[in-house]
Amino acid sequence: MERAQTSEALLRARLEPARILLDADDIDVGALNSTLAMLDGAEISHLLETIPAAQRIEIWTRIDDGLAAEVLDELPDLIASDLVHKTPDERLGRIGSAMNIEQMSDAFELFPDDIQESLVAGLSQEERKRFESAIAYSEDSVGRVMRSDMLVSLESATVNDALEDIRKRPSFPEQTDQLFVTDAHGALIGVVRVNDLLVAMPDTPIAALTDRDPPRLRARETLEDAAALFERDDLVCAPVINRDGRLVGRMAVEEVVDSLREMSEENAFFREGLRSDEDLFGRVWESARRRWLWLSLNLLTAFVASRVIGLFEENIQALVVLATLMPIVASIAGNTGNQTVALVIRGLAMGGITRSNLAYLAAKELSIALINGLIWGGVMGAALVGIYGDVGLGFVMAAAITLNLGVAALVGVVIPLSMDAMGRDPALGSSVVLTFITDSMGFFIFLGLGAVFLVQA
Amino acid sequence: MERAQTSEALLRARLEPARILLDADDIDVGALNSTLAMLDGAEISHLLETIPAAQRIEIWTRIDDGLAAEVLDELPDLIASDLVHKTPDERLGRIGSAMNIEQMSDAFELFPDDIQESLVAGLSQEERKRFESAIAYSEDSVGRVMRSDMLVSLESATVNDALEDIRKRPSFPEQTDQLFVTDAHGALIGVVRVNDLLVAMPDTPIAALTDRDPPRLRARETLEDAAALFERDDLVCAPVINRDGRLVGRMAVEEVVDSLREMSEENAFFREGLRSDEDLFGRVWESARRRWLWLSLNLLTAFVASRVIGLFEENIQALVVLATLMPIVASIAGNTGNQTVALVIRGLAMGGITRSNLAYLAAKELSIALINGLIWGGVMGAALVGIYGDVGLGFVMAAAITLNLGVAALVGVVIPLSMDAMGRDPALGSSVVLTFITDSMGFFIFLGLGAVFLVQA
Repeated sequence: MERAQTSEALLRARLEPARILLDADDIDVGALNSTLAMLDGAEISHLLETIPAAQRIEIWTRIDDGLAAEVLDELPDLIASDLVHKTPDERLGRIGSAMNIEQMSDAFELFPDDIQESLVAGLSQEERKRFESAIAYSEDSVGRVMRSDMLVSLESATVNDALEDIRKRPSFPEQTDQLFVTDAHGALIGVVRVNDLLVAMPDTPIAALTDRDPPRLRARETLEDAAALFERDDLVCAPVINRDGRLVGRMAVEEVVDSLREMSEENAFFREGLRSDEDLFGRVWESARRRWLWLSLNLLTAFVASRVIGLFEENIQALVVLATLMPIVASIAGNTGNQTVALVIRGLAMGGITRSNLAYLAAKELSIALINGLIWGGVMGAALVGIYGDVGLGFVMAAAITLNLGVAALVGVVIPLSMDAMGRDPALGSSVVLTFITDSMGFFIFLGLGAVFLVQA
Repeated sequence: MERAQTSEALLRARLEPARILLDADDIDVGALNSTLAMLDGAEISHLLETIPAAQRIEIWTRIDDGLAAEVLDELPDLIASDLVHKTPDERLGRIGSAMNIEQMSDAFELFPDDIQESLVAGLSQEERKRFESAIAYSEDSVGRVMRSDMLVSLESATVNDALEDIRKRPSFPEQTDQLFVTDAHGALIGVVRVNDLLVAMPDTPIAALTDRDPPRLRARETLEDAAALFERDDLVCAPVINRDGRLVGRMAVEEVVDSLREMSEENAFFREGLRSDEDLFGRVWESARRRWLWLSLNLLTAFVASRVIGLFEENIQALVVLATLMPIVASIAGNTGNQTVALVIRGLAMGGITRSNLAYLAAKELSIALINGLIWGGVMGAALVGIYGDVGLGFVMAAAITLNLGVAALVGVVIPLSMDAMGRDPALGSSVVLTFITDSMGFFIFLGLGAVFLVQA
């Protein structure tokens, strides 16, 4: 009962009627329309993400253009682009016109060329300037997500002037706890907290309330860096300036929350070689094809690792128990190495790995690997002596586990660091490369030791 | 050059002098003290997290008690508890007294029993009530992180009354864009946006500005649900009510940002069997021991999977190439199954998997597996025909890959869903169970088919 009141359960309950209507053999159009009329853009976007691709068009064609503009802005690119492809040009034009500049610059690349042209042609000169500067910044930069709705005042104004300006606005911008103060040329001087405005006397000069060294962002900064600043200084919003120090927009905590959520999902997905916008309910054939690159890469590395085993076929024939036990050495090192990779990736993300502590880190991970290799390799070796009554086999197993855990620790530190140094995201691919090395080395070390000490002895 | 101006690089630069001083053979105490004096609690906490455990105490003993209280609140539990153990009781008492109620309820369990007693004894009656209600809520609930600093007004007040109250406060609470409105018994009636206060006439009744159906949280709700609400409605803060509808505190977006960041790190760590507060620069022996449970579990599953191979030793002896190739079948299915697991975990987190789309999801993942199995199993089989000139071997490989990918898809859907249904976090352990099954089944299917169609033929 308690659980039924939480906001997630509420959202689920709000969307359930639409799901049930869609699953019926005959869709009750009237009921579906009135169900949809009660949902907002974020809710419809959530609904679209969680129904099979074939049902999405049923919803999409039933919502009005303004709502469709919002929905398109919220949807992952993959689903949005699929819906855009199925929408007549005429409607796309209307949807595009219903978007604000931020939504339009986000969704712009989804539209066909001629619609893009007509959308740009429909902008006022001022809007076109904002639009062009938004799409000039790279995808994950502050400039791309920044907003233009903000409170601005000249340094020479009074509190009363600022309040007059605010009263004249059609609405107060969301997630705003600061008024930005500029000089006559638009250069950012500082900020005044809305709280201070609230309790100040009307004739107080704005200059007297201005904090001249507030946290600020540059338009070219990455969203990741911006999120770190918001997190550290507990910001609600922050001014964005360009190279010349001119105020060009603002970023609000909403964008930080969204980008943190995306980063968190991307990381889990990246590790498995999935695109961040992979569609859980997408079409079978498209999803199957989207996994080919990863599959073929995995197949190739597994095949190469198996060639290492091929080198020892004669030894395996002589002592077949080697084939039985070799996957243990490979598997345990793969798992342990992936722990090191996860630690190093977090260290990199926190900016916590520097030249001065790198040697300590590598030495620490190697020591842990050798200690645990001796202990748990020893346990496994002892178990084999018990089962097979072969002391040599026990020693070979213990030694192979210890050595391969050492390999895993070093490789687990080196791979993500090298990928980061090459400017690539270490979350993507570190794990494949590591597993390839721990598999190949595991087979090589164990079969090699077995060949030398067991087969030829 | 551009990069050197980002906030992350700035933080790194601010901390670098302290790192360099710590790495010197003889620590220059005067320089270290003056370097530390320029850093705030969040920065010192970051520094502590990213230096070897042995150096931490050098910093910790040098900061004053008020700063230490802040630092303790920011540090991961594992590092905080290590430092607390090394701090004399007298200083711990002073640090505890410097904490506010929220910090104290967070850090309370770190302190030894007698310090806990004296801290509670030092609270005023009102503080003790707040403290007790905070620690009554479970660790990841809204009640545990909520704050008591908030703007509250009676429904019967005017804007002028509310502004008078605000002016009397020593400071304006951070991350506040709402004033909460209650009746005389403390029950939440609604909220007034600070923006509306800003532009309202002084004699306007608060009741006239009150939104009576604002987003609100229950103290027992989980942080995850609260984060979803903040994200969906773009909130800066929200009132928290208890079962009776009484206003008991507020939650701000800062807590959402922190918990999103933690969830994102926990997920990556959980998958690898690491604790979320695992310490990258901790002591070797402690870190080694902390990995034992996972290591022994991995060793056990790898050992059991190797028993499956043991069943086929005779067949391997007869056709040793089976041993060479069996890891390919196991490995490719493990990787593919983990993709399905990642997709299902995200679907669960988004609340997007319901009874009505579960069958579709399972059928889709199974179809993808069979399509890709036929295609890529076929490629691998053809390659084997080319290498070994053995058509039967090629067919056995293609069939084994197809079947094991099918197993991986079904298991990849079923495991996270069952863990979720049992109330456990599917991010922890799904991957181990899946890999165990895809390994065992991979060996069984490939060696079994090989035994029937190749060895005995």
